[in-house]
Amino acid sequence: MENIQKQIQDITLHATEHDLQLLEQLLKSFQLWKSGNNTTFISSLLQMERKISDDDCEITIPISPLLYNTLHIVHGGMTATLLDTAMGVLANSLVPEGYGAVTTQLNINYIAAGIGEHMVCTAKMEHKGSKTLVLSAEIHRSDGVKIAIGTGSFLVIEKKNIG
Amino acid sequence: MENIQKQIQDITLHATEHDLQLLEQLLKSFQLWKSGNNTTFISSLLQMERKISDDDCEITIPISPLLYNTLHIVHGGMTATLLDTAMGVLANSLVPEGYGAVTTQLNINYIAAGIGEHMVCTAKMEHKGSKTLVLSAEIHRSDGVKIAIGTGSFLVIEKKNIG
Amino acid sequence: MENIQKQIQDITLHATEHDLQLLEQLLKSFQLWKSGNNTTFISSLLQMERKISDDDCEITIPISPLLYNTLHIVHGGMTATLLDTAMGVLANSLVPEGYGAVTTQLNINYIAAGIGEHMVCTAKMEHKGSKTLVLSAEIHRSDGVKIAIGTGSFLVIEKKNIG
Amino acid sequence: MENIQKQIQDITLHATEHDLQLLEQLLKSFQLWKSGNNTTFISSLLQMERKISDDDCEITIPISPLLYNTLHIVHGGMTATLLDTAMGVLANSLVPEGYGAVTTQLNINYIAAGIGEHMVCTAKMEHKGSKTLVLSAEIHRSDGVKIAIGTGSFLVIEKKNIG
Repeated sequence: MENIQKQIQDITLHATEHDLQLLEQLLKSFQLWKSGNNTTFISSLLQMERKISDDDCEITIPISPLLYNTLHIVHGGMTATLLDTAMGVLANSLVPEGYGAVTTQLNINYIAAGIGEHMVCTAKMEHKGSKTLVLSAEIHRSDGVKIAIGTGSFLVIEKKNIG
Repeated sequence: MENIQKQIQDITLHATEHDLQLLEQLLKSFQLWKSGNNTTFISSLLQMERKISDDDCEITIPISPLLYNTLHIVHGGMTATLLDTAMGVLANSLVPEGYGAVTTQLNINYIAAGIGEHMVCTAKMEHKGSKTLVLSAEIHRSDGVKIAIGTGSFLVIEKKNIG
Repeated sequence: MENIQKQIQDITLHATEHDLQLLEQLLKSFQLWKSGNNTTFISSLLQMERKISDDDCEITIPISPLLYNTLHIVHGGMTATLLDTAMGVLANSLVPEGYGAVTTQLNINYIAAGIGEHMVCTAKMEHKGSKTLVLSAEIHRSDGVKIAIGTGSFLVIEKKNIG
Repeated sequence: MENIQKQIQDITLHATEHDLQLLEQLLKSFQLWKSGNNTTFISSLLQMERKISDDDCEITIPISPLLYNTLHIVHGGMTATLLDTAMGVLANSLVPEGYGAVTTQLNINYIAAGIGEHMVCTAKMEHKGSKTLVLSAEIHRSDGVKIAIGTGSFLVIEKKNIG
């Protein structure tokens, strides 16, 4: 606790208003994760909002400086995380009780820079086999420009065998 | 500031010792990022340690619950982030002054679960053209097991045109 | 010429009716190629029939034992050839006069076995930049089952610089 | 038979010496395939020569105009066929008796033009699981230049379930 108070003091000493907003957002991610409202810290950090139907999964995230690469656009790894999550959520919703779907392969084509207010990823099923699933997804930014497309392979395995 | 103090109180009220360690780590990532020691928040969050030579780039990260997916193994998106960063750092070290290399495509095969103490990603150059670069990378975990391999395409562009 | 007549004799000596049909088909591919009706021997061999519009390119091929792998289903390399050709034809139709589009990357997910009477590949544009193009394609077989999906990256280059 | 003789006459009427050599090569592919010396027509057409060990598989093919695309370099689909075959041969050598390995995903980065006398593809195992295999491969041309790299995913299935 002392360390944490010291860290907060250190950060806030030189912080701009914008820095403090980002810190608040970061702490909120931690709170959400620990409260169990979001399933992973990453999902909380990216402030993922999910809509899932039988056929597709849509995840929206706001674009925050916490997700930037050195060029101040969304880091390709964060785009990959969004794609993998949207496909993974849909894949896991489609396997039988007691089974999970783990990503075995992911391919992404980056098309345009991740800038603007938010990004929306839509994943859909391409193939549902008993052992493997194939999904595709695409991401658009708030001005409507498509910024990435991807495909993923998933292996269906019994949950007790995962990890 | 008031919000932040309230958030800290709220978090620490029900926190275990382990939770507090993770919070400290998270705040340290923020500090590092703001101090400019690491180039992005993501790199700080993943606690990336880089070694770069003419031919390859090696990045090591500790495995933390902050990187977990719902199965309590490293999130595939974090593995993708590590691969993309190691390849991107090497690619950017190889283009002429005033130019940058942006990822246009990333393919990953996930081989084994991301568990254990840390992960090491090694990227190497496969092709260096004047317009495009191709790199490959692989990730091993601390027990020596290879957990992912990947390839990436990069487009060489003038820095003033990026973003 | 003597060699060729000897080869024909040797082949036809032990040939079944079906073998002779395949030989006829093969010779027809060679004739078509040499007559310039098809642009490449491969296109002739696969008996590609193209329909191209502003937005997509559709190529249909009959399934022949000449395209089989050791399991007597269409060889994955032939499926890749069909995908690459459909995307490449569309890409090349979209670049300015004097420019060509060369494949720099191809990713394919194989979903179901290539069997039945024919395969239809439909390619569409995902991104048209001045330097790079991204396309996607999918292949269905005659019974309507989707057997593969793929994406491709293309680099736009001046024709005089190709090869 | 009459058709075939007519086709041969038609082809040889306007054929150059080089055309006749290609026709001989084509007929030789058909002979080899039918004699059962090569496992598929495609392997015969590409004149594949295989060396396989416990750890890798090397396939060499001569570059022939039969493999050209419209730019008179090796068709990307033929490069894909070579990669898929080298990986597939190795994969199938590594699964238990009664099982086969089918390609579920293939990713290729094309690096340089396929020109010169021949191409050599070397495939190696990256991961051998009980259900899935991951392999990688690279292709060099006769002047030593690397022209493509690729990775492939394979699913292990009982032979009676294939096709």
